[in-house]
Amino acid sequence: METMKAIVKETPGPGAKVKEVPLPEPGPGDVLIKVINASICGTDVHIYTWDPWAASRIKPPIIFGHEFVGEVVEVGKDVKSVKPGDYVSAETHIACGHCYMCRTGNSHICLNVRILGVDVNGAFAQYISVPEANVWKTDRSIPPEIASMQEPFGNAVHATLIEDVAGKTVSIFGCGPIGLMSIAVARASGASRIFAVEPHRMRLELAEKMGATHLIDPERDDPVQVILDETGGVGVDVFLEMSGNQKAIEQGMKSLRKGGRVSFLGIPGGPITFDFANDIVFKGAVMYGVNGRKMFDTWYRLTELLRSERVDLSPLVTHRFGFDDIHKAMDLLIKKEACKIVLTPE
Amino acid sequence: METMKAIVKETPGPGAKVKEVPLPEPGPGDVLIKVINASICGTDVHIYTWDPWAASRIKPPIIFGHEFVGEVVEVGKDVKSVKPGDYVSAETHIACGHCYMCRTGNSHICLNVRILGVDVNGAFAQYISVPEANVWKTDRSIPPEIASMQEPFGNAVHATLIEDVAGKTVSIFGCGPIGLMSIAVARASGASRIFAVEPHRMRLELAEKMGATHLIDPERDDPVQVILDETGGVGVDVFLEMSGNQKAIEQGMKSLRKGGRVSFLGIPGGPITFDFANDIVFKGAVMYGVNGRKMFDTWYRLTELLRSERVDLSPLVTHRFGFDDIHKAMDLLIKKEACKIVLTPE
Amino acid sequence: METMKAIVKETPGPGAKVKEVPLPEPGPGDVLIKVINASICGTDVHIYTWDPWAASRIKPPIIFGHEFVGEVVEVGKDVKSVKPGDYVSAETHIACGHCYMCRTGNSHICLNVRILGVDVNGAFAQYISVPEANVWKTDRSIPPEIASMQEPFGNAVHATLIEDVAGKTVSIFGCGPIGLMSIAVARASGASRIFAVEPHRMRLELAEKMGATHLIDPERDDPVQVILDETGGVGVDVFLEMSGNQKAIEQGMKSLRKGGRVSFLGIPGGPITFDFANDIVFKGAVMYGVNGRKMFDTWYRLTELLRSERVDLSPLVTHRFGFDDIHKAMDLLIKKEACKIVLTPE
Amino acid sequence: METMKAIVKETPGPGAKVKEVPLPEPGPGDVLIKVINASICGTDVHIYTWDPWAASRIKPPIIFGHEFVGEVVEVGKDVKSVKPGDYVSAETHIACGHCYMCRTGNSHICLNVRILGVDVNGAFAQYISVPEANVWKTDRSIPPEIASMQEPFGNAVHATLIEDVAGKTVSIFGCGPIGLMSIAVARASGASRIFAVEPHRMRLELAEKMGATHLIDPERDDPVQVILDETGGVGVDVFLEMSGNQKAIEQGMKSLRKGGRVSFLGIPGGPITFDFANDIVFKGAVMYGVNGRKMFDTWYRLTELLRSERVDLSPLVTHRFGFDDIHKAMDLLIKKEACKIVLTPE
Repeated sequence: METMKAIVKETPGPGAKVKEVPLPEPGPGDVLIKVINASICGTDVHIYTWDPWAASRIKPPIIFGHEFVGEVVEVGKDVKSVKPGDYVSAETHIACGHCYMCRTGNSHICLNVRILGVDVNGAFAQYISVPEANVWKTDRSIPPEIASMQEPFGNAVHATLIEDVAGKTVSIFGCGPIGLMSIAVARASGASRIFAVEPHRMRLELAEKMGATHLIDPERDDPVQVILDETGGVGVDVFLEMSGNQKAIEQGMKSLRKGGRVSFLGIPGGPITFDFANDIVFKGAVMYGVNGRKMFDTWYRLTELLRSERVDLSPLVTHRFGFDDIHKAMDLLIKKEACKIVLTPE
Repeated sequence: METMKAIVKETPGPGAKVKEVPLPEPGPGDVLIKVINASICGTDVHIYTWDPWAASRIKPPIIFGHEFVGEVVEVGKDVKSVKPGDYVSAETHIACGHCYMCRTGNSHICLNVRILGVDVNGAFAQYISVPEANVWKTDRSIPPEIASMQEPFGNAVHATLIEDVAGKTVSIFGCGPIGLMSIAVARASGASRIFAVEPHRMRLELAEKMGATHLIDPERDDPVQVILDETGGVGVDVFLEMSGNQKAIEQGMKSLRKGGRVSFLGIPGGPITFDFANDIVFKGAVMYGVNGRKMFDTWYRLTELLRSERVDLSPLVTHRFGFDDIHKAMDLLIKKEACKIVLTPE
Repeated sequence: METMKAIVKETPGPGAKVKEVPLPEPGPGDVLIKVINASICGTDVHIYTWDPWAASRIKPPIIFGHEFVGEVVEVGKDVKSVKPGDYVSAETHIACGHCYMCRTGNSHICLNVRILGVDVNGAFAQYISVPEANVWKTDRSIPPEIASMQEPFGNAVHATLIEDVAGKTVSIFGCGPIGLMSIAVARASGASRIFAVEPHRMRLELAEKMGATHLIDPERDDPVQVILDETGGVGVDVFLEMSGNQKAIEQGMKSLRKGGRVSFLGIPGGPITFDFANDIVFKGAVMYGVNGRKMFDTWYRLTELLRSERVDLSPLVTHRFGFDDIHKAMDLLIKKEACKIVLTPE
Repeated sequence: METMKAIVKETPGPGAKVKEVPLPEPGPGDVLIKVINASICGTDVHIYTWDPWAASRIKPPIIFGHEFVGEVVEVGKDVKSVKPGDYVSAETHIACGHCYMCRTGNSHICLNVRILGVDVNGAFAQYISVPEANVWKTDRSIPPEIASMQEPFGNAVHATLIEDVAGKTVSIFGCGPIGLMSIAVARASGASRIFAVEPHRMRLELAEKMGATHLIDPERDDPVQVILDETGGVGVDVFLEMSGNQKAIEQGMKSLRKGGRVSFLGIPGGPITFDFANDIVFKGAVMYGVNGRKMFDTWYRLTELLRSERVDLSPLVTHRFGFDDIHKAMDLLIKKEACKIVLTPE
C-alpha cells in the first residue's frame, strides 16, 4: 500500500477534495498512525470555507484535520516511548523544544509552534505521521469517538480548570463544542451553578445535557440581569468566554463578581472593547488568555476525567460520516445543525 | 424563661452533666440563637473522656459542643447583618480581629483564637450566644441535621480544596467524619480515583457510600503497594492525612507521587517522624498544615456544595439522640460504633 | 478648640476653598487623628479641576485628600487596637465588613466601599476621624513625608507584587507617582531589567532615580521595538500598566512575552480596545485588574519595604506646601511640573 | 589529543585519583564541552570521603564533579540549539523525557533521573559530554568562576523563590554555600529582614556579606527567642531550611509565623521528627520539599539575577586550585575552612 485516502485543501479557495495521496513517511523521531476516527473542529470549517484567517495562514496543498485517534503502525528508529499497536491520539501543537516557552514548561505557547492540519499535514487521512513528543497514549477504555475529541476537550479542561471551580458559580458564554465540554468539566469539578448563555436552540439543549443548571437565550433574556438576580447581585465567581463575541464578552464581564476569574478562549474576528475602568480595574478581575492545552498536564487530567467517567462527551456527537461525506458534514456545521461530527476514514 | 437545658462539663474529670443553667446574655455585638440541632465532634469526645489534651485546655464549668444550627431569637444593639428568625450556624473560631493573621485574611489561624465549646460556652444547650462576626446565615434548603455539620464539613472542604483535585487521584488516610466528608468533597470536585484507607469496617463502608473508588483496609493490604500498583508506580497526586497516625503518615507519603500535594489535618498525640530526605526533599512534596476553615471563603464554598446537592452528607448521620442520651451517644462514639450523632435539645 | 483649617470642595465646580470648619466628632468605633502631613493624589486633582468623574461622584461640601500621616489624639469607647499618641496612617477604603468580598479577605474591593476624601470627609484638614479598622499604626522610623505616601505606595506594592518579579524583566508604562513607586518596588524585589515608558522628561528622570534600567520616551522611540530588541524578541515577563492610555496599553501588550503577566492599574477616561486574539488569547496572557491595596497584607509588606530601606520614596517629593498654597500646588500638578507634593496643615 | 586529565573515583573507598583518561565521545544528541572551571559541591566531598550515601549510590570508576562552565568544542549531528564556541554550563539532572514528571514540566524531579558526576561521568575533567537538553548557554558577562556555580545557585533560587519574599522576613538555618546563596537571593528579591542561623564563624561572616541582617550563632543564642523577639512574637514569614539538622528544623518551625512558608532543602542523614500538631497542623504551615532546579525556569531567573548584578556570588569563592590540588581542596572543605573552591583543569 503506497497511497491513502485523504481530505485535501488543494488550492486556495473554498472547498476540499477527497483523493488518494502518498502515504506519509515518518522520520527517525516520528510515529505513523492509522487513523480510526477524526472529528471536525471549527478551525476545519474555516479552512473549508476559506475565511480570511484561513486565506492568510494555510498554504495548500495540505491535508487538514487535527482531532483524531488511531493505532500506531510504525515508529522511527529514535522513538522510545511508543510502539506499534499502541492506541494513541496527539497534541496538535508541534513545539520547537528550544524556545523560552518550551524550556519553561509552556510549550503549548511555543514561540515557533506549528500546528497539525494547519501548518503540516493533518488527520483527515487514513494515516498521519506525528513527532513522538506529540503522541498521547490513550486508555483503551475510552472509545474511539470520544478519544478523537481529546484535543478540543483538552482546551475545555485547560480553560475551565486554570483555577478551580469546586463550590463556585460559573458562566459560560458560547456553547459551541468547547463551551459545551467546559460545562461538563465544570460540572464534574464541583461547580455549583452553571449559567449557559447561547442563542442557538440545539446548543442550549446540549448545554443542559452537559450539566448546565441555568439556560439563558440572550436574544430572549438579558444574561447580566439573570445572573445577577440568581447570585444575590454579586455575580458569578468564574466566567468562561467561549464565544469570541463583543457583546457576550461585555455581558460576561458585567455579570462577573468583583475579584472573579475569567478564561478567554473564544477567538473574535476583530478587536474587542472593554469598559476597562469598571470591568477590569475596579473589579479586580483575574483574567487568563487560554490557548491550547498544557503539555501534558492537561492530557493527564483529561484522561482521568474520561477514564473515570466523571465526564461523558457522547451527547456531543450528533453525526457520523465517512470521508466521502465531508461536504455534507461541512454543510451541517456551517448551518449550525450539528455539534461534533466524527469521521471514519473508510 | 430564664434557664435552659445544657450539657455541662462541671468539674475536671470524665463525664458530663445534663442540667438547667442560666440563659446566656448576649452583649451588644452578639447574637442569641435557639439551637435546633447540634452534632458531636471528636473534640467533644475528648472533653467528655477528659483526655490529656482536654485536661490541659478545658476550664470547667463549661457547656461544650460547637457544631450546630439554630434560629436567631435576639440580637445585640450593634448587630447589623443578622436578625431574629434567621436560620444560622456559626464558625467556631472566635478571632481577635487585630492580630497579623486576622488583618491578612487568615483569621482562622488567629494568634488569639478562642473556640466555641472549648474556651467559651458552646452549643450543647437550648440557646447559645455567638459574636455577630461568627454567625453564618444558612440556606433553608439545607436541612438542620446537615446544617449542624457545616463546621466539620468546612474542615473537609478546606483540607481537600486547598489545591484543586479535578482530574486527579487522591488518597485519604483515616475515615473518621472529616475524612469521610473529604471523600465526598473530592468526589464532587472531580477527583478521578479516591483511595480510602481505614481499618474500621463500618467506616470503610461509609467511605464507599461517600464516593471512594478504592477501599483499603491497612490491616489486610499494604496501602503503599495497592496505590502504587493502581497508579502505574507513580503514586497519587494528592494525599489527605486525616488520621494523625504515624504509620498512616508514612504510608501516605510513600504512596504520594513526586511533586504531589499533602493536606495534614489529623492531629496525633505526639511527635511524628518523617523519612525526610526521600519523602519530603527528593520528592519535592508540597505540604499544607490545615486548621479550621477559611473565614469565610470555605463557608461560601461549602454552602454551594450542599445547596446544589453536589455533596450529600446524610449517610454520615448514624444516630440521633436527645440531650438526655448524651452518655449513650458518647459510649457509641468511644466504641467507634457511630459516625456522626446529631443531638436535639429536647 | 472647636474648629480647624481644611481644604474644602464647597460647591460643584472647579477649585477649592481653605476655610475653618468644625472639628470631626469621632463615633464609638472611630479614631481622631491630628494630621502631620498629607500628600496630593491624582484623584485630588480631578476633584479640584472638577472633571467628569468628580462631577458624577463627589457630593459637596466635602473635605478632600486621603493620603496622610498623623498622630492619634482621641479614640472612641469601642476602640481597642489604637491609643492616643500612636503614629498612624489609614487605609482609605472604608469597607462594609459584611459583603461577600469583606468576608473572604478582599475588603479592598468591598461591594459597598466608601472612600476617605471622596465619599466622606478626608485628610486635607488639621484633624481627620477614621474607623478603627482603617487605621494603620506606622513605624516611627518612617518620616512623616514618606509615611504620608503609604496609601499610593500600597497601590504600587499590590500591583507590582501580585505575582513576583525577582529575576524577571518588567515594563512600566506611565510614570506618574504610582508608576514611579512601582519601579522602586520592582527594583527592590529583584526585577532584573525595568523598562520605564513615559513621554514626560521630568518623570523619566525620576524613573531612573527609582531604579529603571531602560528609559523610553514613546514620542521618540517605539517602546515595542526597544523592549523586543532588549529581550531577544521574546518580550518582558511583566507589564505594569500605570497610564490608562489606549496606545500605551496596546504597546504594553505587544511587548509582553507569551504567558506574561499584566497588572492593570491606570484608569482611562473611556473604553479600551484590545487586539484580543493575538494579545490575549494566543498570547496566553495572565492579567489582573488592580484596585486599592490588600487589607492589610499590602500594608505589612510596604511597611517592611520602607522600614528596611529597601525602597526610598524621598526623590518623589518635589514640593512642600502649607494648606494655603493649595492652588499653587494644584497648578504645578496640572502642568505636570511636580511629582508628589506634601502638604502641612499650618 | 586522545586523553585528558580528570579527577576519578577509581574504586570504592575514600579518596580520588588525578589521572589521564580517554576523551569522552559525544553521541548524536550530545555536546562536548572544554571545562574552564569546575566548583566543588558538598556531594563531591561525600563521594571523596566515601560516606554511606556515596557507598550506596556511586559505581566506580567514575569522574565526579558536576558544577562547571566551559566552551563547546564539538556537537553531535542531531544537536540544533548549541554550536562550537558557545560559553555554557549544564543542568546536572539528566531527565528521561518520557515520565509523568518530565511531561508535566517537572523534569527536575524526573522519575528516572541520572545525575552528572554521580551516575555518569562528570565535570572534574578537561572535557565533559552532556546531552543537548542539559546544556545552558551562559551570558559572557558572567565570569567563569561565578558561572561555574550556576547549578548550586539554581538550588538557592528555586528554594528561596518558590513563593515570593519581597517585603517579607526570612530565616535561613544553615549557611553552607547554598544557604549563603539563598541569603543573597532573598536580599536581592526584597526580603526585609534576613535571619542567618549558623554555628560556624566563617560562614556567619559570609552570611553578613551576602546580606543577612541578623546573625545568630545557635550555640550562643536561642534562634527561636531572637527571631520571635525581633518579629513582635509572630515569627518569620519564610523559613529556608538549609542544614538538614534535627535541631535546626525544630527551631526553624518554632520561629515560623502561623501560615508561614518553609522550603526544605537540606538533607539529613536520618529521619526527622516534628512537633506535628503545633508546628504543622495548628500552624497552618505551607511546606515545600525542594530538589534541584526548575528546568529551565530557574536557570532563566538565575541568569537575570547574575547578569543584572542583583546578586554577587564572588565573596563565596574562598579558594582556587588546579586539579592536582584536589586533596588539599577536599581537606579544607572537610575541615570547613573553605566555602566554595573553584578548580581549573590545568
